[in-house]
Amino acid sequence: MKPALIITMLATLAPCSGFPCRAAQPLPSWNDGATRDAIVGFVQRVTDKNSPEYVSPDERIATFDNDGTLWSEKPVYFQLLFAVDRIRQLAPEHPEWRTQQPFKAVLEGDRETLARSDMEGVAKLVMASHAGTTTDEFAETVKEWLETARHPRFERPYNEVVFQPMLELLDYLRANGFRTYIVSGGGIEFLRVFAEQTYGIPPEQVIGSTIKTKYELRGGVPTIVRLPEIDFINDKEGKPMAINKFIGRRPIAAFGNSDGDLQMLEWTAAGRGPRFCLLVRHTDAHREWAYDRQSHVGRLDRALAVAQQRGWTVVDMKRDWRVVYPFER
Amino acid sequence: MKPALIITMLATLAPCSGFPCRAAQPLPSWNDGATRDAIVGFVQRVTDKNSPEYVSPDERIATFDNDGTLWSEKPVYFQLLFAVDRIRQLAPEHPEWRTQQPFKAVLEGDRETLARSDMEGVAKLVMASHAGTTTDEFAETVKEWLETARHPRFERPYNEVVFQPMLELLDYLRANGFRTYIVSGGGIEFLRVFAEQTYGIPPEQVIGSTIKTKYELRGGVPTIVRLPEIDFINDKEGKPMAINKFIGRRPIAAFGNSDGDLQMLEWTAAGRGPRFCLLVRHTDAHREWAYDRQSHVGRLDRALAVAQQRGWTVVDMKRDWRVVYPFER
Repeated sequence: MKPALIITMLATLAPCSGFPCRAAQPLPSWNDGATRDAIVGFVQRVTDKNSPEYVSPDERIATFDNDGTLWSEKPVYFQLLFAVDRIRQLAPEHPEWRTQQPFKAVLEGDRETLARSDMEGVAKLVMASHAGTTTDEFAETVKEWLETARHPRFERPYNEVVFQPMLELLDYLRANGFRTYIVSGGGIEFLRVFAEQTYGIPPEQVIGSTIKTKYELRGGVPTIVRLPEIDFINDKEGKPMAINKFIGRRPIAAFGNSDGDLQMLEWTAAGRGPRFCLLVRHTDAHREWAYDRQSHVGRLDRALAVAQQRGWTVVDMKRDWRVVYPFER
Repeated sequence: MKPALIITMLATLAPCSGFPCRAAQPLPSWNDGATRDAIVGFVQRVTDKNSPEYVSPDERIATFDNDGTLWSEKPVYFQLLFAVDRIRQLAPEHPEWRTQQPFKAVLEGDRETLARSDMEGVAKLVMASHAGTTTDEFAETVKEWLETARHPRFERPYNEVVFQPMLELLDYLRANGFRTYIVSGGGIEFLRVFAEQTYGIPPEQVIGSTIKTKYELRGGVPTIVRLPEIDFINDKEGKPMAINKFIGRRPIAAFGNSDGDLQMLEWTAAGRGPRFCLLVRHTDAHREWAYDRQSHVGRLDRALAVAQQRGWTVVDMKRDWRVVYPFER
């Protein structure tokens, strides 16, 4: 037997812990079933050179929403909690915030109002609390927050409250020649701080909402300064527009969880050749959360109807995911 | 001798046509001298794992201006000639253009006014003449133009009026693990039509000026429509801002030819670790053009002074380039 074959067999056997032993499969945190089969079947068809649906590697682009798709988004978008923490931290230097919205709501702990914030609301809050800082300073602030802040339910850093099955899916796609992009309503500069370490997605493959910036020399040093003005909200119709602008190619696979992802999935599905669209449905009140049509955060209503009508893949978290978070293992 | 070594030696010997035979060198269209040595020396330092200046491949980002750096920009920016051709072509359907600027100047052949157009002027003209078209239709129009239009001096398709030494430089950098980006004042959707075939630069590594777009369903088909509104002019201060937005990393090497590239080079130079900044100086009135401080198109004034002061590499086209265009060979 050739040494390479022995090594392959050993690698195949290694993850088996029970008996009868299954051959090593991709996506170990996904339960067997139609959802997993749909993903694996698509990847096999587009990567098999003898398949009529073969897609060349340069066109293998997969786009992922972040909030509710790669990590949780409850009790509210994590970036909103970042903004709240920052506003509380900076409040002593800003007495005027006690009477100015949106700062007033934050300082008074008006959770009702905050929970209703959409992506634009989050962007505005982050923007307002960080205007005038440089992009480097902002990144440093996010980094510190991720190191010290803890998710209220799981008492873990926010970038550990990510979905193990989706981490495996990202790896699996990349191992099959895909480039994986984040296309999120969250702030691009917020996401880029942790996307590489957490998801293996480098900065240039992160697309998010943006604020306007200004280039200036500060003490002779070239600096990019954040301005208190929204540039682009990367949500709903914004997602295909941003994909067109940043990538200039249409994805062949798109992954989301809410109505804010519908247009990205529609745009992906409308391309020629094989396409794959998937929605993560939050059905697990025990391990994560269960919500759809009635939720302020991550509302899933119209996109679910379209998915069912068009036969897109819908993940039932409770049924399809053996593990939700990495820390469960 | 190992077979691999023999193959390497053969590959090394193959390009020799004269005697004494030089070992095959990168950048064959560059003359020997300080400019070529500066490029090769930088690449060797950042790719040698034993060098104190070693840079990991993920940080090897090189950004290139296009007009005047990768292709010529005389008699005027090529994209301006595209817009002029399109306006003339569409004029019969638009009688109102005979009295409306900027169309009037175009239709009256007011070359004086056109020659003074900066990048914003070009963007406005392209925008005005293509508002309401879809991104797919626009790409098709550019493709047809490149196939049929000819450069007035060289009577070649515009995407053949590119600099052979720069094509070699792009290849050389990529062979050394760099990702090469275009960062141009030209329109992003214009550039993406030919960048991959002409320069080997894929759409997702092309950054340019943008107009606003709108996502809509046209007869049920998801469509991105061009709006008559400037989104962003990717020139001067815009270049480092767009690099920060699209790439999210600072380049370690930047290549330009005019004052419009100064901030990109400054931003690149201001990073930590080894940096390389280069300006192409148009000094060859015979083979290409000779211009700098007095030119409307591609003015090189302040950037040249800064380059000289800071020791950036300045290409003297006449002295440093053995060949200018691929069609000379």
